Amino acid sequence: MALEKIQKANDIKELTEEELKELSDEIRQFLIEKISVTGGHLASNLGVVELTMALHKVLHFPEDKLIWDVGHQSYTHKLLTGRKEGFDDLRKYGGMSGFPKRKESKCDAFDTGHSSTSISAGLGYVAARELQQEHYNVVSVIGDGSMTGGMAYEALNNASRLKSNFIIVLNDNTMSISKNVGGISNYLNGLRTTQVYSDLKRGVEDTIKRIPGRGERIVHQVKKTKSGIKQLFVPGMFFEDMGITYLGPVDGHDLKTLTKTLNEAKRVNHAVLVHVVTKKGKGYLPAETNPSKFHGTGPFDVTTGETIGGSGIDSYTDIFSKVLADIGKKDEKVVAITAAMADGTGLSRFAKLFPERFFDVGIAEEHAMTFAAGLAAGGMKPVFAVYSSFLQRAFDQTIHDVCLQNLPVVIAVDRAGLVGSDGETHQGVFDLSFLSSIPNLSILSPKNRWEMADMVRFAVDFQYPIALRYPRGEAYEGLKEFRAPIEYGKSELLYEESEIAVMFVGHMSFLAEQVREDLKAAGYQCSLINARFVKPLDTERIRKISENHRILVTIEENVLTGGFGEQVEDFVMREGIPLKVRTIGISDDYVEHGNVDVLRKEVGLDRESIVKKVIADDRRIEEEK
Amino acid sequence: MALEKIQKANDIKELTEEELKELSDEIRQFLIEKISVTGGHLASNLGVVELTMALHKVLHFPEDKLIWDVGHQSYTHKLLTGRKEGFDDLRKYGGMSGFPKRKESKCDAFDTGHSSTSISAGLGYVAARELQQEHYNVVSVIGDGSMTGGMAYEALNNASRLKSNFIIVLNDNTMSISKNVGGISNYLNGLRTTQVYSDLKRGVEDTIKRIPGRGERIVHQVKKTKSGIKQLFVPGMFFEDMGITYLGPVDGHDLKTLTKTLNEAKRVNHAVLVHVVTKKGKGYLPAETNPSKFHGTGPFDVTTGETIGGSGIDSYTDIFSKVLADIGKKDEKVVAITAAMADGTGLSRFAKLFPERFFDVGIAEEHAMTFAAGLAAGGMKPVFAVYSSFLQRAFDQTIHDVCLQNLPVVIAVDRAGLVGSDGETHQGVFDLSFLSSIPNLSILSPKNRWEMADMVRFAVDFQYPIALRYPRGEAYEGLKEFRAPIEYGKSELLYEESEIAVMFVGHMSFLAEQVREDLKAAGYQCSLINARFVKPLDTERIRKISENHRILVTIEENVLTGGFGEQVEDFVMREGIPLKVRTIGISDDYVEHGNVDVLRKEVGLDRESIVKKVIADDRRIEEEK
Repeated sequence: MALEKIQKANDIKELTEEELKELSDEIRQFLIEKISVTGGHLASNLGVVELTMALHKVLHFPEDKLIWDVGHQSYTHKLLTGRKEGFDDLRKYGGMSGFPKRKESKCDAFDTGHSSTSISAGLGYVAARELQQEHYNVVSVIGDGSMTGGMAYEALNNASRLKSNFIIVLNDNTMSISKNVGGISNYLNGLRTTQVYSDLKRGVEDTIKRIPGRGERIVHQVKKTKSGIKQLFVPGMFFEDMGITYLGPVDGHDLKTLTKTLNEAKRVNHAVLVHVVTKKGKGYLPAETNPSKFHGTGPFDVTTGETIGGSGIDSYTDIFSKVLADIGKKDEKVVAITAAMADGTGLSRFAKLFPERFFDVGIAEEHAMTFAAGLAAGGMKPVFAVYSSFLQRAFDQTIHDVCLQNLPVVIAVDRAGLVGSDGETHQGVFDLSFLSSIPNLSILSPKNRWEMADMVRFAVDFQYPIALRYPRGEAYEGLKEFRAPIEYGKSELLYEESEIAVMFVGHMSFLAEQVREDLKAAGYQCSLINARFVKPLDTERIRKISENHRILVTIEENVLTGGFGEQVEDFVMREGIPLKVRTIGISDDYVEHGNVDVLRKEVGLDRESIVKKVIADDRRIEEEK
Repeated sequence: MALEKIQKANDIKELTEEELKELSDEIRQFLIEKISVTGGHLASNLGVVELTMALHKVLHFPEDKLIWDVGHQSYTHKLLTGRKEGFDDLRKYGGMSGFPKRKESKCDAFDTGHSSTSISAGLGYVAARELQQEHYNVVSVIGDGSMTGGMAYEALNNASRLKSNFIIVLNDNTMSISKNVGGISNYLNGLRTTQVYSDLKRGVEDTIKRIPGRGERIVHQVKKTKSGIKQLFVPGMFFEDMGITYLGPVDGHDLKTLTKTLNEAKRVNHAVLVHVVTKKGKGYLPAETNPSKFHGTGPFDVTTGETIGGSGIDSYTDIFSKVLADIGKKDEKVVAITAAMADGTGLSRFAKLFPERFFDVGIAEEHAMTFAAGLAAGGMKPVFAVYSSFLQRAFDQTIHDVCLQNLPVVIAVDRAGLVGSDGETHQGVFDLSFLSSIPNLSILSPKNRWEMADMVRFAVDFQYPIALRYPRGEAYEGLKEFRAPIEYGKSELLYEESEIAVMFVGHMSFLAEQVREDLKAAGYQCSLINARFVKPLDTERIRKISENHRILVTIEENVLTGGFGEQVEDFVMREGIPLKVRTIGISDDYVEHGNVDVLRKEVGLDRESIVKKVIADDRRIEEEK
């Protein structure tokens, strides 16, 4: 077994050519087997097996800095740097991360998770290297999807000024998570079929040269101009124009050529882009055929490729998907926008029904938000569905383009709260804070599947900026009996008692119910209130609560700083309302990867911790009397 | 006077050729005169007089949608749409904005202020137009500086898919606010000297055609390939590659050619980029010679070009500039980064002394932050100086690249708080909220010029992410006698009394002193505390305050939601500390343009309003007893 010879970084350099061949097969086998059990990112990792091997042949770890854009394609890199055992606990709490982590290995140069950061980070390393007169290599590996993100372009624009080596590997698998869009995609497509250029180049050059007397001179004259004949024939002018040498395209599954090209790239004394064409899912037929499904997957049957498990219960995303499609049928003003997440956000249904009213803008959240503002200014009703952690990218545009002009844009904030196995970079735990501070923006969140449907309708009908926040995973099917019409800025009273009031945001409904149950069992009277709106606050309700409750417990799956609970506290204190507020949420730290239930326990978002705190609060109040 | 004939939108269409010539001179005269009195953006506006006139010749307002990127170059547009009188109160409170404002005129299609949004917004209008089968024109005018922002590229990438007309005017004045940087700049420079291409094209085509027997066929063959001969000869391949037709370059001061080219552009049935070369400051020598100085200017003497007024007192930015340069001499690890604001942030001093350790990355805040993270990971000590409102662009990168990895990046947050005449889009009033919610980040803010110097040193010495927040304008020279060494997470007690404690953030020092004075005059005992750190909170101090004060007043120039005061309230309530907290800050709304002192009164950040509130609070506490 070649894989057994890889115990630590750089061991790959000792393998024979024969063993290298075996190695790629063994890695694929290993990844398929392991991921079929743990779940994880499969297709992208199968696509870069040879590329990663080639990088490990030409680089030396941990001295050289290899930066994986997004980072979920770093599994082979983890394998080749002595982390084979980690795959048993991949993405589990306390186990190995599915992304590069500097804490995990010295061979991980930079933590990633979001798209399009790798060239910027790589440029930072290059500048640091030059200023400190060090000599390591810096390589950023970026997918063609990530190239649709503006940050990558900002970085490329700066890379053009380098006077020392920096290798950008463009891992071109002709799709990001969804299918790629836009000019850059067409452009790369052109590069891939480059044979026509080569033939043409030879043909025309020969022909011109044969012009009696003047041929050679013309070719010379053309060549000496700034770009000259290169501009006609060299693929990658887009990059060459920016001052970045272009090498490629190279077959991403041909280890020998890859190694040779990367070695060539190391000799360039400025920025160089190596265009590598790979196949997502390579070597596992179900993933090759359906790379989107095997982008991030749960456990699956290796033989059939069928996913194992799944409850059959609709997710909040499913409901959003269905209701929005339904609204789309009746209201032609409704348009939907995604930043390369048509499947993940459930917008693919809307897209199929109304292709002309659906916009996949690429991994471009900034553009998406301002584009939505433009659509709204033009009289449409745009719905931008985006994961909470990626919405962070469009923070300024939300403030500056949507809310300042008070335009009726619906921000459908998916994957809000803890997302689980993707970890720190993907937890959607900041949105309530950063959205709450934006003037003119309303924020609401549903307690269960039926309210989700009602809120989608409410948000689309609303005439001003509004954010609808909901989590990853199954929609709650409890509290079915409560379905009062959504009223702007009003909470929903579910159980009216006294002593303690529990007011929850959105999907914390299930937890709030449990807490109430336990408090009742402990002998307390307990009211239960569904906040519905995080902004504006239902201040009337809070006043009312204060009349016959001692403690108001707020529960939200968001950082506490700037979140729902603090706004409740602010109101109570500002108005001098005699009510103890106990805020429950995520304290001031990043939350790592792991099963969401485990994570909730870890951060104190579980019934036991909450009930304990509330009872302690109550005892203290009693004592203080 | 031709200008007198312009009373409302579209009046320009009635002018004769002779009058048009006069008009451009008169507009320039008008702008110079008016801005010399009120202050405002001069150089950029003088540069686009003919371009704006041409746009008004070929467009019809308000039906057609004209979107100005950044927007401070819209003065001629305002003149041509009947807002001549507005220039007397330009950028004054209640007066005309220096930026496009939909509220101000139907001829302003989209509010702008930050860079690189116009193509996204334009695309939104185009999509809305097509879906509603309307027929107006959409034109976005974007500068070459704004083209270094990633958002513009995200939008261009999407523009390539259009199947109907959309005009992007690239206003190329070879500089943004500072001098332009990067690949795109070099590229545009190439385009400007395009004559060589034209000559070459003709020459080679003719030569090839003359090849006996086969010439015509070769030319045909070359032309029919995807880009073919166009790729050799057409400037603007960068854009053409993205699927966007390129027209130009056109002399931006030649009204006739401009009008002709724009009319031509209107006939294209997809996205078209018109490359217009303009001269910043055109027609006013001092501004032509020194466009940076006349970018945004205060009142000036028209004859000499000398700025009028100015107190001679150092700004916080000046002190930052000097101290950082000083630190740079001793510590070679220190590097400085700006996003096209070398002068504005005061980094130009550092740049001159240590050019190799200074990075102007263009208008690219996202890249800047992650680049800083990379530099820090590589062992350097990066300082990224950025205006508060532009830092909003790098929110995700602060969370995801700097703070998650706990990297020692200094974020120098300039123009924090109210900035005045630039208005809504530039007020730096969200940073305390969005920065406070980020784990691992510390935040501090200085009370006066001496503390500013100390804090710059403290921040650079600090080993983790840290944000230093300071405002636009003169550094406070009061409270000179207090200069205790900065201690991490500790506030500074200035006056220790009882009853009421006033705790302020940074430059609210002067106001807090006034409030204390008035409270003393009203018979109260009053302590004064300089918060110094917004994060972490000096909880020990707050506990101490509660021992002998009834009210703790917090003062910050930031929105209240998620700001300093709410964090104090949260601590007090969480710990059950018996202390009334009165938070003073900006309530949940955008703050328009105007003199900062006037604005502070408007939002209640003035001594009278604060003292009134505090006394009312105290009376209520007494009554409740």
